[in-house]
Amino acid sequence: MIRSVPAFIEGYGPVEPFAGAFARLGPATRRSVTRHPVRPGQGKLLPSIRAAIEACGLKDGATVSFHHHLRNGDDVLRAVMAEIAAMGFRDITVAATSLFPVHAPLADHIRNGVVSGISATYIRGPVADAIAAGALPTPAVLLTHGGRARAVEAGDIRIDVAFVAAPTADPYGNINGVQGKSACGTLGYPMVDARCADRVVAITDHLVPYPACPIDISQEDVDFVVPVDSIGDPQRIVSGITRVTTKPEGKAIAAMAAAVIDASGLLKDGFSFQMGAGGVSLAVADTLKTIMSERGIVGSFAAGGITGTLVEMLEAGLFRTLFDVQCFDLKAVDSYRRNPAHQSMSASQYGNPHACGAVVNQLDAMMLGAAEVDLDFNVNVTLGNNGVILGGSGGHSDTAAGAKLALVTTALATNTHPKIVERVSFVTTPGETIDAVVTEAGIAVNPLREDLRERLRDAGLPVVSIEELQHKASCCDGVTPPPPVNPAEGRILAVGQYRDGTVIDVIRANPG
Amino acid sequence: MIRSVPAFIEGYGPVEPFAGAFARLGPATRRSVTRHPVRPGQGKLLPSIRAAIEACGLKDGATVSFHHHLRNGDDVLRAVMAEIAAMGFRDITVAATSLFPVHAPLADHIRNGVVSGISATYIRGPVADAIAAGALPTPAVLLTHGGRARAVEAGDIRIDVAFVAAPTADPYGNINGVQGKSACGTLGYPMVDARCADRVVAITDHLVPYPACPIDISQEDVDFVVPVDSIGDPQRIVSGITRVTTKPEGKAIAAMAAAVIDASGLLKDGFSFQMGAGGVSLAVADTLKTIMSERGIVGSFAAGGITGTLVEMLEAGLFRTLFDVQCFDLKAVDSYRRNPAHQSMSASQYGNPHACGAVVNQLDAMMLGAAEVDLDFNVNVTLGNNGVILGGSGGHSDTAAGAKLALVTTALATNTHPKIVERVSFVTTPGETIDAVVTEAGIAVNPLREDLRERLRDAGLPVVSIEELQHKASCCDGVTPPPPVNPAEGRILAVGQYRDGTVIDVIRANPG
Repeated sequence: MIRSVPAFIEGYGPVEPFAGAFARLGPATRRSVTRHPVRPGQGKLLPSIRAAIEACGLKDGATVSFHHHLRNGDDVLRAVMAEIAAMGFRDITVAATSLFPVHAPLADHIRNGVVSGISATYIRGPVADAIAAGALPTPAVLLTHGGRARAVEAGDIRIDVAFVAAPTADPYGNINGVQGKSACGTLGYPMVDARCADRVVAITDHLVPYPACPIDISQEDVDFVVPVDSIGDPQRIVSGITRVTTKPEGKAIAAMAAAVIDASGLLKDGFSFQMGAGGVSLAVADTLKTIMSERGIVGSFAAGGITGTLVEMLEAGLFRTLFDVQCFDLKAVDSYRRNPAHQSMSASQYGNPHACGAVVNQLDAMMLGAAEVDLDFNVNVTLGNNGVILGGSGGHSDTAAGAKLALVTTALATNTHPKIVERVSFVTTPGETIDAVVTEAGIAVNPLREDLRERLRDAGLPVVSIEELQHKASCCDGVTPPPPVNPAEGRILAVGQYRDGTVIDVIRANPG
Repeated sequence: MIRSVPAFIEGYGPVEPFAGAFARLGPATRRSVTRHPVRPGQGKLLPSIRAAIEACGLKDGATVSFHHHLRNGDDVLRAVMAEIAAMGFRDITVAATSLFPVHAPLADHIRNGVVSGISATYIRGPVADAIAAGALPTPAVLLTHGGRARAVEAGDIRIDVAFVAAPTADPYGNINGVQGKSACGTLGYPMVDARCADRVVAITDHLVPYPACPIDISQEDVDFVVPVDSIGDPQRIVSGITRVTTKPEGKAIAAMAAAVIDASGLLKDGFSFQMGAGGVSLAVADTLKTIMSERGIVGSFAAGGITGTLVEMLEAGLFRTLFDVQCFDLKAVDSYRRNPAHQSMSASQYGNPHACGAVVNQLDAMMLGAAEVDLDFNVNVTLGNNGVILGGSGGHSDTAAGAKLALVTTALATNTHPKIVERVSFVTTPGETIDAVVTEAGIAVNPLREDLRERLRDAGLPVVSIEELQHKASCCDGVTPPPPVNPAEGRILAVGQYRDGTVIDVIRANPG
């Protein structure tokens, strides 16, 4: 069951309520964009971020965008917002792809009125805390990767200026992410912003002679280029290595998830797969790797944020292609740099529900995480049981909607709280798009997937009901039901927007 | 002097007259586009061209588009138009990128009323003859490569259905041009149509499993995929080899043109260059190759339709990059397939004057051909002195406008007619964008480029006036002034649209 949401939310506007994962897929409009032509002989290089802000004609109330490919190493959002604040602008909306702890200074800009609006697909750290504390005068808007691309293309989010952190750029605005000290790999997220923003500024710490080949974002969309000393901390831009889980419980869950994929009938030539960078997902990938090698299965593609594990599978011939919206580690960056079978994809190509068919639609199996799952298979990856904003959908809802087999892997409980609950405190991803939940205590299959349940039973896998899992979760040693968070009444702090632009849930302030 | 054009042209509409090469470069609008979302599980594969036409909801009066990467080997335009005719549609506008002799059947569709409008950047052969004979009820619209991209993006040309000949496609609409028996290399022209058309149909003779990596045109823009036996004749799709001129006169002109480039001061590290596939251009490239090798000059890029000669220069380290809108020969196709420094570019990236800076704006030297040049340096590559439509601008006007040094190379006269004339019969490219004309009898420098004239004189090159060249041309043995073509009055058969969308000239029916 999805909660009802108000018809109008102050500071957000009229609400179209979520009505089903595929209820709103009529002809969709890509908005008209105004370009500022550049004549022969006219340059784009500017000496400072301030000069670029001035050249873009930024105004109070404007929307500026940023991407998160530099992850917790990004210094561009800080630098730009510091300049915007120093120039005295007010009432700015920050349309970020994701916000990390490194973006802490943004919390101050919220508190002092420079920033009055935030949207992102994932928010964690001090900015999330500021939002949860009610510091933002308007509700934060939590999107999905594909939904943000849709919103930017449709003009629901109108970006006045996109500031693109550019690991490499030339003086005429061609950008790539594979060269320079801040190399981060593909640039799937800002590709969309660069196409749709009114003005686009590349900020780079590696200015190279024209042209910055290979080109990920083209000069035809970039207005200005600003060289700076550093766009971030390379140590934090990509993690060096990702690790398979070593916990016995995690290993058991991973083994069961791999068995579910095997039993689903999807694991054959042409198989496609996506996972996160978590330890359980990596363990699943390891098992699939063994099965695919043994049986000589060649998959079509692996997608998503790409890890070294998937690169190894590509190089071993287990997949023909990688679709990469974002490199998760250095091995992925290196692979994208040199292997033509490792392709970039924009956030729109990845998950936009209003595109003429996104990559997620071609996914066979998707591995998903969860903070909570409820009896309707709804998943929460947004709100913690202590009221903390944990992150958000990212591509969670997009891949769940697209994949033939959307598998949630989770332990029954944390040390203190159940993870399978009667009702999630916030619906990130609707249960109708989740096919099964894999726990150490068995696999619950969504009643919508009777076919899958049969297959798993035939394979001798421990299929149980979601109710049974919920009951077991509540009985784990030391586990107590969490205190209520996200009440039915109260000020709305954040609006959860489903990928189609409807409102699927809200986060409200707790009383007192 | 540019001729005045009417304020309104029947069958074309209101006219904005050409007012200077850079007079119309205000903020430009990329039009809103409607997408038809595809849900998970929904396919795109259709059994026939007819099924695709039906699925697109084609109507009488619609505009359909085609690209010319298969050149004189293309069979897709014929096949689609035959089906459209057989289905009884009328009043169709064909928005082609270029039309070749192979497209002869289109002339019949014009005569029988299936087709009532044509636009293209280059038209040669029976379709050109049908237009010149007055068979089309509305004026044909002659565009430039960049101008067509601008018009399609702006919505001046609204494409209802883009039919994309696809050397390789997968069932979900990803397309590339580097695999399959009909491989043609880059797909720079249909990239624009695929982004902007209401519906996009891929027609392929090489259907591969998903995904068709490397992807040149993405699934997110393609509605339907139709497999067919053949999209064309591989023998005619790309020429096997291009040849340097062997005529003494051609060699003399080429040597002089190379000397002009050398004397211009542009031939140093970072040098950028574009040329056609003609014998004189190739001879110029050969000379530049020698000079660059000897002096250790490393150019930034060569652009355009790419030939094997430019590939050799890339591989010899004389250029860092190739920007390729279209491969001219097999060597170029092969290079694009395997060399990441050989990049594709869309027609918009190539020459769109309203893009935020096209590649032509970064060109140092451009080699241009001419059917006629006049005393104002205006160039005609569109209309023959017998009234035949010879082709059209292609990228002629775009590169002339963008390049620092736009050089026309031409003999003074053909066997029978002068090529340097008082006034061209049709202005394809305005003289203000031409820097010099190189002939076997000397070099005429545009008076706007006094600096260049000085440099050439200092280098001891034979600088003469354009009037002197015109006089000499008219005195060549056996040469007589051509009979008048393109009178000042009479029915307008074709409208020449400059890259910015203004009308620069018209072709009128000759009386009698």
